[in-house]
Amino acid sequence: MLTRREFLVTTGAGVVVARQQSLRRRSALLIIADDQGLDLGCYGNRAVSTPHLDELAAGAVRFTHGFATVSSCSSSRSALYTGLFGHTSGQYGLAHDIHNQSTLEEVESLPRLLKAAGYTTGIVGKLHVKPPTVYPFDYHVEGPEIAGNRDVAAMAHKAGEFLSATTDRPFFLVVGFSDPHRNQTGFANTRSYGSVPKRAYDPASVIVPSHLPDWPDVRHDLADYYEAVTRLDHGVGMILSELQASGRERETLVIYVSDNGIPFPGAKTTLYDAGIHLPLIVRAPEGGRAGATTDAMASWVDITPTILEWTGVRGPSRYRLPGQSLLSVLAEDHPRGWDEVFGSHTFHEITMYYPMRAVRTRRYKYIANLAHQLRYPQAADILDSPSWKAIAARQPTKMGDRDVAGYFQRPAEELYDLERDAHELHNLAGETAAAGALKELREKMAAFRERTRDPWLLGRKAERGAGH
Amino acid sequence: MLTRREFLVTTGAGVVVARQQSLRRRSALLIIADDQGLDLGCYGNRAVSTPHLDELAAGAVRFTHGFATVSSCSSSRSALYTGLFGHTSGQYGLAHDIHNQSTLEEVESLPRLLKAAGYTTGIVGKLHVKPPTVYPFDYHVEGPEIAGNRDVAAMAHKAGEFLSATTDRPFFLVVGFSDPHRNQTGFANTRSYGSVPKRAYDPASVIVPSHLPDWPDVRHDLADYYEAVTRLDHGVGMILSELQASGRERETLVIYVSDNGIPFPGAKTTLYDAGIHLPLIVRAPEGGRAGATTDAMASWVDITPTILEWTGVRGPSRYRLPGQSLLSVLAEDHPRGWDEVFGSHTFHEITMYYPMRAVRTRRYKYIANLAHQLRYPQAADILDSPSWKAIAARQPTKMGDRDVAGYFQRPAEELYDLERDAHELHNLAGETAAAGALKELREKMAAFRERTRDPWLLGRKAERGAGH
Repeated sequence: MLTRREFLVTTGAGVVVARQQSLRRRSALLIIADDQGLDLGCYGNRAVSTPHLDELAAGAVRFTHGFATVSSCSSSRSALYTGLFGHTSGQYGLAHDIHNQSTLEEVESLPRLLKAAGYTTGIVGKLHVKPPTVYPFDYHVEGPEIAGNRDVAAMAHKAGEFLSATTDRPFFLVVGFSDPHRNQTGFANTRSYGSVPKRAYDPASVIVPSHLPDWPDVRHDLADYYEAVTRLDHGVGMILSELQASGRERETLVIYVSDNGIPFPGAKTTLYDAGIHLPLIVRAPEGGRAGATTDAMASWVDITPTILEWTGVRGPSRYRLPGQSLLSVLAEDHPRGWDEVFGSHTFHEITMYYPMRAVRTRRYKYIANLAHQLRYPQAADILDSPSWKAIAARQPTKMGDRDVAGYFQRPAEELYDLERDAHELHNLAGETAAAGALKELREKMAAFRERTRDPWLLGRKAERGAGH
Repeated sequence: MLTRREFLVTTGAGVVVARQQSLRRRSALLIIADDQGLDLGCYGNRAVSTPHLDELAAGAVRFTHGFATVSSCSSSRSALYTGLFGHTSGQYGLAHDIHNQSTLEEVESLPRLLKAAGYTTGIVGKLHVKPPTVYPFDYHVEGPEIAGNRDVAAMAHKAGEFLSATTDRPFFLVVGFSDPHRNQTGFANTRSYGSVPKRAYDPASVIVPSHLPDWPDVRHDLADYYEAVTRLDHGVGMILSELQASGRERETLVIYVSDNGIPFPGAKTTLYDAGIHLPLIVRAPEGGRAGATTDAMASWVDITPTILEWTGVRGPSRYRLPGQSLLSVLAEDHPRGWDEVFGSHTFHEITMYYPMRAVRTRRYKYIANLAHQLRYPQAADILDSPSWKAIAARQPTKMGDRDVAGYFQRPAEELYDLERDAHELHNLAGETAAAGALKELREKMAAFRERTRDPWLLGRKAERGAGH
């Protein structure tokens, strides 16, 4: 990672080369929310205030069916940056601290490919993948100076500095908010952050999702989460103003996503829709339809191909990416052939081994729990949340609509008919009437795992010979 | 890793500094066998020929009770190099390829500490830990030029070059053999390696350990393994000749160990004695008793403190090591206070999640299987071995003395009385008569896990707050 000064020196020295290389001028801005569900006004939640995201959506294409590959920060972000599922990239779980999972050295990530093509690459805020050699951003601002990524005004200011310093080259900028992630006391709302306005919510006004009990503690927890969502929204507005002020809006693809579902039981770290069905808004200066939606089922592994197509930069030289560019579907409400996505979870924390693979079609969700003999593990931030503490204290048989015992001790296979059972409560895997669907989804999953070189697919010769 | 040329340049440039720093002249040579059990003449196996190791033992102290911390290559080597259990160092499993486990950046390893103290550090052959920043050996020779570390004469030659090039400084040299590890067709005995003599064994003459069936396929497999042991032995002889020729024998501590047990079912990747009770020979120019033995229970986490004491280099600045230097026990057959060791296994291959923790005292072995709900996984090299293929084809109820079904589906706790049951076959964990021993061992294990910051010890506040 370069200091600000080194960054400027490097940029200066590279001017001639950059001018020669950058015949293409198209840049990309990827904005990543941390643990946000579909809690945006433009996604139909009228209880939370997200005016800037709604405005972005009004000038862009909103995906009604966007899916993370996994509901865990590092593995999801590695999918965004590399176009690979976690089981292929090696980013099997969290990167930081004792969890210590990292992307394989040979992976050709977006920052690596774009940098090699003459782009200036930067990240403001949360990165949460490693090693730096795989993610060689020229410019990385994180930490206390932007108040743990909660001072969204300071983050926008840093993004503006980046844009000012790179006028001679195309850029790839990631803004990684830490909102609305939990910290150890809540959603970081107990203090103020510079000029960022505060917006508190009445617990009575929040919408309690189906996977949570409608209890006062849970409502308070959700209100706290909403407050962080609105702070994030303010930051998105400021970032987009900085982009506009830079005069580069007409050349810049803007993508807004969240990395995984909300940090509450039943969502984050699961492959249920509450964990992976997330906001995706794409604003293309050309070819987009302002204010339109598309119901293409898009996967976070599609983001890398999208940015590669937009920038005209060639993809990885040594392997094929599993996803496809989304640019073509921006023109269509109901594009054909975008009817399935896949999920792959292995770890969240290193102690939370619980490999799952999923296929989601328009109608069905099929989940294979590869270590179903184990109790489903919960993340530390969820264990320490007011919502979980209330559940642990009262020991209900259900959390919202979901059976608690079955949530923690899962079967080898789960199959849900989402048309009749949107909340994934009634497992059809053992039912005769669903045998045909089960067979077809098993085959899709086997092919997916083979195609993406899943190490957990036993019997693969390559892995059988890989032990030392 | 430096090229040979860079190494020489660096050494040249560092001469003045080195002379100032190296008031102490004591050097260390650590020789590591790969997957060797107690199959040495000096350890009582008269069926295998190990004249050079026997000669080393005749001039050194042989540990009758040396124990690896884990029976898996990378995690065991990280314990040798860092003095930390795998669950503390972050080297939870294999480092290479898709397994991708690495030691935490803040770990102060032997090469890091000794290099900072003015030592020249080198490794010839297998390293199998990462990242390079934690293991910053000045000099690393590996790969085709030494025939996958099977051309033990070429390895000795490289070690000699290292010794010739570092005469102005104290050194720390590791020689990491790849014998007697399996490769995909056997033990790499189908070809010759330069001047290294070949020594084949009659399958009728091998000793079949208690955890294997006495079948022709198994005997052939063991004979193949013995051949690799004897090649290794030849290499050890040549390395020691190079040390003698360098004139630095009188200042050099020599340690010989294996990383884990034999690559056969019932040994490697288990915490049974067949997996972790291994050769340890220490030759100290001062204070050792030539040809003596000690029954101190020594752990591989004691190797780092031993080398630090020998060299007089200070240990890690930010944490305490769990082991103790072995130098004092070299003087005693039966030293007091060396009566227990601990084991910690988490992964071998990344798909082989099977966390186990163990305490071994003189009398008992206690194993906690933290994910006992899962089937015990086998390594790819064992799955592909002639021994396992014979077992898989015949499906016996026992492998040697051990029940096959119980080997693969283990209870949460295992307790063995090694005085009566040296092969760890009769689990006492549920028996009333053993309740006192069980309680005491559980307490030892809980204290060990707390002391060494085991992330898998649930409820630890530090880990509960560590999720993101």
